[in-house]
Amino acid sequence: MIENKNNAALNPSPSGEKRGALIVDVCLSPYLYPVYHKENTIVVVIDILRATSAMCTAFHYGVDKIIPVATLEEAADYKKQGFLVGAERNGIAIEGFDFGNSPFSYTTEQIKGQTIVISTTNGTQAIDAARSAYKVVIGAFTNITALCNWLKQQERSVLLLCSGWKNRFNLEDTLFAGAVTDILLKDKKYKSGDGALTASYLYQSAQKNPYRYLRNSSHTERLAAMGLKKDIKYCFTLDQTTVIPVLEDKYLVRMT
Amino acid sequence: MIENKNNAALNPSPSGEKRGALIVDVCLSPYLYPVYHKENTIVVVIDILRATSAMCTAFHYGVDKIIPVATLEEAADYKKQGFLVGAERNGIAIEGFDFGNSPFSYTTEQIKGQTIVISTTNGTQAIDAARSAYKVVIGAFTNITALCNWLKQQERSVLLLCSGWKNRFNLEDTLFAGAVTDILLKDKKYKSGDGALTASYLYQSAQKNPYRYLRNSSHTERLAAMGLKKDIKYCFTLDQTTVIPVLEDKYLVRMT
Repeated sequence: MIENKNNAALNPSPSGEKRGALIVDVCLSPYLYPVYHKENTIVVVIDILRATSAMCTAFHYGVDKIIPVATLEEAADYKKQGFLVGAERNGIAIEGFDFGNSPFSYTTEQIKGQTIVISTTNGTQAIDAARSAYKVVIGAFTNITALCNWLKQQERSVLLLCSGWKNRFNLEDTLFAGAVTDILLKDKKYKSGDGALTASYLYQSAQKNPYRYLRNSSHTERLAAMGLKKDIKYCFTLDQTTVIPVLEDKYLVRMT
Repeated sequence: MIENKNNAALNPSPSGEKRGALIVDVCLSPYLYPVYHKENTIVVVIDILRATSAMCTAFHYGVDKIIPVATLEEAADYKKQGFLVGAERNGIAIEGFDFGNSPFSYTTEQIKGQTIVISTTNGTQAIDAARSAYKVVIGAFTNITALCNWLKQQERSVLLLCSGWKNRFNLEDTLFAGAVTDILLKDKKYKSGDGALTASYLYQSAQKNPYRYLRNSSHTERLAAMGLKKDIKYCFTLDQTTVIPVLEDKYLVRMT
């Protein structure tokens, strides 16, 4: 990146990007990922309600590997091969599979030591969008402290990729991105792009009254209407686990 | 849209979308426009720093029509044909053209009664992305009250399309989208999507301390570094005009 004090406008990068500075930024939809992709950047995939929360839970309860797949066709193929498969669309577990994407489905002894397959409306699509990234890890409020501690040790720029809702912006993923941004920016080696700056403002503002913030959010409303308030509460509970799932080829595995 | 109380999750629309309700939502990047496009929705194109602010100014100072073009090649073609042409990339006026995108360039007598051509880094790309919309109008803090009054009379859903910065999210366009959302939601006929809800939260929070909000925004920083604080101040000043530019075929014209 050419830096020229007299011509700062020629630099198309986020404001903080100086030679050597690490950037934390937020991509608000998987559809936007190509715009934000940069080499050597760690991508954190976020689908708070509920895919990435459920994945963290599954590893905490002893799953060995997760194969995240974008389509139900792939999920059905794995099912035929004898895998345990979680499949969800629009908040509902798909008939004929073993689990939906409620974190509570993945607290069972049945998954211990297993390789399972998961396909969800948004989260597994976001993982798919980011496959070309330097590294893809899974974030949720349930593993936030472990995740942030690990990120800070990496000396890499970080892109927080919100899964959203069918490629649209959503609130809960953005709030989590803001929470992570806030933690990382306390370490002065990071600078923020506009997306991260804004997510951080939102998170700070939401902390004062989180229920007001989420009350009108479309997916929270959708899940609450389905009687899933217990899931919502769990997904917003910090630090249920220290596991960080990481993508290795087609598998999510436990970071070692 | 099929509505089924027992199966709310099958409705992929923003939470508020019920038969007959008008939706106000925000699309945070022109790149995301295909995800948000809906028939019969009015699109407000927003590029606060500085394209849409400058366009409102130009109409206020008597320009007859503006031809917004996405590429510099098109701009150069028009220049050869004898048009007055504004062309800007990365905040800088391009040599060989008549104007950049400072609103103060468009307060000249020279433009009165003329058809002029404008091509900018972000704003004219956003207009281009939304050409298939039911109607495209131009919004800025400088025409916000007139714009909102007109929108409320239309009985249509509204999509606030932020031009962003090279398809990335930016803060100032989102704040304006939040300001418009706030005004529209006072009229109970509107419901908000998650993007609009969030922009509105941001705007309410920013109102308490707008300078803190914008201080770290990348484009504000970029323009301030170029000595354009006067432009920034102007672009954040409400209601400099009652003009609403509207796209008719290839022309922006004054709404009558």
